[in-house]
Amino acid sequence: MNPNWRIFYEDMVVGQVTRFGQQPVTREEVIDFASKYDPQPFHLDDDAAAQTHFGRLAASGWHSCGMTMAMLVRHFDETGHAGLGAAGIDELRWLTPVYPGDTLSLEVTLLDKRRSAKRPDMGITRQQITTYNQHGEPVMRYIATAMVATRKSDGTD
Amino acid sequence: MNPNWRIFYEDMVVGQVTRFGQQPVTREEVIDFASKYDPQPFHLDDDAAAQTHFGRLAASGWHSCGMTMAMLVRHFDETGHAGLGAAGIDELRWLTPVYPGDTLSLEVTLLDKRRSAKRPDMGITRQQITTYNQHGEPVMRYIATAMVATRKSDGTD
Repeated sequence: MNPNWRIFYEDMVVGQVTRFGQQPVTREEVIDFASKYDPQPFHLDDDAAAQTHFGRLAASGWHSCGMTMAMLVRHFDETGHAGLGAAGIDELRWLTPVYPGDTLSLEVTLLDKRRSAKRPDMGITRQQITTYNQHGEPVMRYIATAMVATRKSDGTD
Repeated sequence: MNPNWRIFYEDMVVGQVTRFGQQPVTREEVIDFASKYDPQPFHLDDDAAAQTHFGRLAASGWHSCGMTMAMLVRHFDETGHAGLGAAGIDELRWLTPVYPGDTLSLEVTLLDKRRSAKRPDMGITRQQITTYNQHGEPVMRYIATAMVATRKSDGTD
């Protein structure tokens, strides 16, 4: 078991809301990500973006997912969260464009949790992740189904 | 209107399946992506990955999303697809680990389409995207809700 883990499945409280993170969005990174993974003109070039609903250079939605994940992993490390990875994502919505100069942060709500029937060393959680910009506007939101290690694997809470 | 567009909303046929893409997964890129966006040990280091269910260094699920998007954008460019971007993603599932040395490809199925009630120059499509490895195993799957420009904006098909 990972010696850094301090927050296990049993410690997670349904309904709990946690806010954290500070992720600056830079022009260089927006262009670098887009050139590799989403080379659409509005993610690469100001003039092309000006002719679209974005108005100006905007980050790829998948880049926003990456920056969100970076904040999550950093937070899990800092708090000793016994996360075992995610199996899937539901209801991912890109709500507002993300622009260079923005600073992103997160709000995580535990929607529900249950023990795995097959794996007593593991619980299955559903967490709603909302990414905000510095104006307090939600820029994206999704629900992650993620596995978390249990402290005790005898099936008791 | 983009002069490169040749395939518009009216040209898309519900039920149609399209296969394309060839994306090699390199060790350098797996580590580069993970170090920026998903710095969990099993995405960064062979020894750490050997102690998890991945068995060896595996790509971040978000990296697989990025590589999938890169194949989609390249295909849309090549075919002149009048795509206007995606609003959201549903039922994203990571099914099998993606490893350095893999080569990915895509299968896209148009699940349904409808004209936008508010924007006659635009249709709304639901497309199922499945990413395969070189063994023909699906490694991830999702449903994208994506906007596509109409050829005619008078509301007729």
